[in-house]
Amino acid sequence: MPYHKPESKTVQELKDIAHRLRIHSITSTQASKSGHPTSCASIAEIMSVLFFQTMRYKLSAPKDASNDRFVLSKGHAAPILYAAWAEAGLFPISDLQNLRKIDSDLEGHPTPRLNFIDVGTGSLGQGVAVAAGMAYVGKNFDKTDYRTYVLVGDGESAEGSIWESLHFAGYYKLDNLCVIFDVNRLGQSEPTSLQHQMEVYRKRLDAFGFNAIVVDGHDVEELCKAFYEASETKGKPTAIIAKTFKGKFFPNIEDLENWHGKPLGDKAQEVIKHLEGLIVNHGALNVKVQSPTATSPTVDITKVKLATPPEYKLGESVATRLAYGTALAKLAVNNPRVIALDGDTKNSTFSEKLKKAFPERYIECFIAEQNLVGVAIGAACRDRTIAFASTFATFFTRAFDQIRMGAISQTNVNFVGSHCGVSIGEDGPSQMGLEDVAMFRTIPGSTVFYPSDAVSCERAVELAANTKGVCFIRTSRPNTAVLYKNDEPFQAGKGKVVKSSPNDQVLLIGAGITLYECLAAAEQLAKAGIHARIIDPFTVKPLDSDLIVKEGQFCGGRVVVVEDHYREGGLGEAVLSALAEHRNFVVKHLYVPRVPRSGPPTVLIDMFGISSRSIVAAANEVLKL
Amino acid sequence: MPYHKPESKTVQELKDIAHRLRIHSITSTQASKSGHPTSCASIAEIMSVLFFQTMRYKLSAPKDASNDRFVLSKGHAAPILYAAWAEAGLFPISDLQNLRKIDSDLEGHPTPRLNFIDVGTGSLGQGVAVAAGMAYVGKNFDKTDYRTYVLVGDGESAEGSIWESLHFAGYYKLDNLCVIFDVNRLGQSEPTSLQHQMEVYRKRLDAFGFNAIVVDGHDVEELCKAFYEASETKGKPTAIIAKTFKGKFFPNIEDLENWHGKPLGDKAQEVIKHLEGLIVNHGALNVKVQSPTATSPTVDITKVKLATPPEYKLGESVATRLAYGTALAKLAVNNPRVIALDGDTKNSTFSEKLKKAFPERYIECFIAEQNLVGVAIGAACRDRTIAFASTFATFFTRAFDQIRMGAISQTNVNFVGSHCGVSIGEDGPSQMGLEDVAMFRTIPGSTVFYPSDAVSCERAVELAANTKGVCFIRTSRPNTAVLYKNDEPFQAGKGKVVKSSPNDQVLLIGAGITLYECLAAAEQLAKAGIHARIIDPFTVKPLDSDLIVKEGQFCGGRVVVVEDHYREGGLGEAVLSALAEHRNFVVKHLYVPRVPRSGPPTVLIDMFGISSRSIVAAANEVLKL
Repeated sequence: MPYHKPESKTVQELKDIAHRLRIHSITSTQASKSGHPTSCASIAEIMSVLFFQTMRYKLSAPKDASNDRFVLSKGHAAPILYAAWAEAGLFPISDLQNLRKIDSDLEGHPTPRLNFIDVGTGSLGQGVAVAAGMAYVGKNFDKTDYRTYVLVGDGESAEGSIWESLHFAGYYKLDNLCVIFDVNRLGQSEPTSLQHQMEVYRKRLDAFGFNAIVVDGHDVEELCKAFYEASETKGKPTAIIAKTFKGKFFPNIEDLENWHGKPLGDKAQEVIKHLEGLIVNHGALNVKVQSPTATSPTVDITKVKLATPPEYKLGESVATRLAYGTALAKLAVNNPRVIALDGDTKNSTFSEKLKKAFPERYIECFIAEQNLVGVAIGAACRDRTIAFASTFATFFTRAFDQIRMGAISQTNVNFVGSHCGVSIGEDGPSQMGLEDVAMFRTIPGSTVFYPSDAVSCERAVELAANTKGVCFIRTSRPNTAVLYKNDEPFQAGKGKVVKSSPNDQVLLIGAGITLYECLAAAEQLAKAGIHARIIDPFTVKPLDSDLIVKEGQFCGGRVVVVEDHYREGGLGEAVLSALAEHRNFVVKHLYVPRVPRSGPPTVLIDMFGISSRSIVAAANEVLKL
Repeated sequence: MPYHKPESKTVQELKDIAHRLRIHSITSTQASKSGHPTSCASIAEIMSVLFFQTMRYKLSAPKDASNDRFVLSKGHAAPILYAAWAEAGLFPISDLQNLRKIDSDLEGHPTPRLNFIDVGTGSLGQGVAVAAGMAYVGKNFDKTDYRTYVLVGDGESAEGSIWESLHFAGYYKLDNLCVIFDVNRLGQSEPTSLQHQMEVYRKRLDAFGFNAIVVDGHDVEELCKAFYEASETKGKPTAIIAKTFKGKFFPNIEDLENWHGKPLGDKAQEVIKHLEGLIVNHGALNVKVQSPTATSPTVDITKVKLATPPEYKLGESVATRLAYGTALAKLAVNNPRVIALDGDTKNSTFSEKLKKAFPERYIECFIAEQNLVGVAIGAACRDRTIAFASTFATFFTRAFDQIRMGAISQTNVNFVGSHCGVSIGEDGPSQMGLEDVAMFRTIPGSTVFYPSDAVSCERAVELAANTKGVCFIRTSRPNTAVLYKNDEPFQAGKGKVVKSSPNDQVLLIGAGITLYECLAAAEQLAKAGIHARIIDPFTVKPLDSDLIVKEGQFCGGRVVVVEDHYREGGLGEAVLSALAEHRNFVVKHLYVPRVPRSGPPTVLIDMFGISSRSIVAAANEVLKL
């Protein structure tokens, strides 16, 4: 299909709309007394063309799976995004005056509390990854022609995460993805490093596998043509690199420093008057929102079950990371939307088991964990897939900001971190997850599974697939004995008493390898006539507080918690939180107390004070308290 | 100086050394039964040329400030790095057989436990940032001619952090930096995304501002020439993009998949025999290590003091973030090595105060927090600077992996995070630090300052400058009343009782804005005849456990902790940890319980349950427990 220039009256309308969006951005930030009107002004023509000429969507159903998608990576330009939807007719323009108010979902940065937002933005540099995840799903799973647009600020394009994602999009030839760079020259506190060096942007994007088009970002016709060219370009994604000006068309503000994140204050009226003067047609719009041209398939991701129950023998030695791979592949048998993503560690995390069973449902993200997490969030949004993203537990620290934003995005992604703790051994501290539980516990609404054996790990995978919010499954590298029968039921927030007697004097709590150290310690203690009860918490969050309180009280309030993790924020502090409002408990907490080192796992476990030997000593001490 | 080819016997020696390094990499990983010999083999010629031809260093003092620096970003190739130092004569070659043993510092990945390592590596993609930090210091502060080399794997060059740092190095024209890419085509679990597309690497690096040279990474002469060209190139850093093969010269292993991270096992002897056959001269070496050509200045970064004490009036309203900037500038007056780095938020964090006072000591890192943290770690290593790196508290989550590695690197960088908690208001949850205390508490050896007023904040800055390990200072956006006299002494791990009476029945603990809510709550409680004692902890880590236990016991074991942070891993759980081994305490913990939203600060503080109203209610409840 050859390109047809829009008619001149359409061009004029798109220009007029851009100015109306500018005016709304000014008046709404005047009302809220905070916000970023100048960051809105630079993208006004881009938003006008996208929402009223290029994008195809159902206004009646902004999240419809057939709609083109739009992600505002530079989330601080939220006012103009809200204005575009209001101008399109989704809600009354007068609502824009509620920007940033406590009872309005028109927040300072976009969140999915709004029905037209798929993912939260506002932490810069994350939009391309989520958009790439959406585009990957569109191209490879939905196989529909909806397109994904993401608008990136030039300031945030200094974020490496952007370049991870651009590389990903280029590598996977996501020609249904269009990345728009708003090169408005000015950052928050000074000009950006590249200012208006458009040719540098072009060279970089070309080198990263994009069809790179430089345009005047305030020229409606150039934008229309560039978006058309993007839609016709096959085999590679398109980058539209728009030269713009911050505060464009705001007299005495445009292209000047010190206007970031500030309402126009007493200059607002003058600027609005100027903008009104630029508008040619003040009447009703003739431009119409384009409708989707195809229908995305209906997807059901609810009530997913393992195809077959766990099949282990009690006492058999199996690493939980291996059980993860097994369960993942079994889950995928039953639902075609179960997918896995990994960062070139699939032969360590065992996500390769899904790749072997269903190669088309595995997304290799290479060594780029921020993009891995972002793509997973994009792939899982709007309930299009059940995504499992895996790497070494500690490497999720690389994507803490993305995971944190995932909670704001209301994501349901499941993260699986292998190689936790000193028990990985010789590779040394850089590879040991010792802060991962703390990190995932901070995520609002998260569920943190820490299965100790293969049976419970398989159930954790099944439960995670059906649990809303961020889930994290912590798997271990060493083999551990199967403790549970194959038909043992598991539930998030429900722990298991794995050893008890009527005479127990101390409660031991461990998970993963430390649960086995508790079992060994209990045997040793028994020889000295001390009886220990043992709890496997199964989930660290939610933690089975009732069980711990009850069993702990039975043991005289004497508790020993031991974990292959640093002191802060892990299982130990979770137990302390559970007991906070109960008097008469005393807790000995064993943890990895300093940066560990390379060595054999068993030696390290003992050296860093989390072996049965230390548990026995702690139990003896706690009996005196 | 024109280029002189090395003599042919030197070339032969360098080739021979490369093979010797390969053999050491095999034998040491055979001894440890784990490790990455094939990842070593691809860089053998690079290491040989660097250590025996190009780099200038004192073998007697590997950390000497005048030496050229070397960072092995692909830390899993540690065995060949150790072998190079052993061959150079730093320690006996026989020590290499202790690789990864529990009592050897020759760990699986390099750490500064070794006297020839500046920074820990092993979490991929971090080497360029730290090297750029070292190079920045060399060029701008030391102003000496030492050069910095960093060796990057092709797998890890998918990490966005690499591209942040390349951009930084290009922008600051760090022509004393040379980044070597080991393009060996194979990742851990499959080929890298770019395999041997050397031209793509060249284009990307050229576009990122580098002098980009593609070489045969196994050709000693090409390497010598490229390193020479790098040293002669002014105004831009050089990238040497080396086409190599994983397992080079290992018959039936070279360039094959499934050989990542595996000793050669029963193939080792055959490969070693083959390599020995390739060595021409088996005798003593004639090549000599080059010596440094200039001397770096002596630097003293100890006992740094504020130039003038805090100057506030009691009750005056000052944001701690502003006090941070004031203190930073005052500290810088007294020591020329105090520097600040920021990610384009300097007018929010107030690091701009240092820039205004000493522009040459401020490093703008733009919006790239991973690089910000890495550059700070590089700049601070070997005690060359006292570095303060600032951004919004929550954006440090972007660099959690770098901060975590900072602990392994034994860094002394000070991180300052502003805009914590819901008290920032209208910008909404994406900008609110609600997990930052949890994150920084997990860092081994860290100190977490949470000053509540301007006086204590200034002292926190001064203390941080003199404290080993990672320091974090959490600053707040709103103004808060000055509580302490200007001469009040502060100490890490020492809290302050800010209100007490002989009849206190409940202990309130708050920090930052919640300390003021505690003060307001105490007034309200007093009206109802309930007396509350209040502690300002000053540091959350180390926490003043003795004080909390003592004052808490005085108050009948009744404690209320309130924080502008999520539940997990913050002040509340720190207090619970402090009380773990004490019976008869009961703690009510008030925290932000879910993803917050945009709104006025005071409304949010109340809505999310951390205002004086909630504290009063909690105090009343705790009195019943």
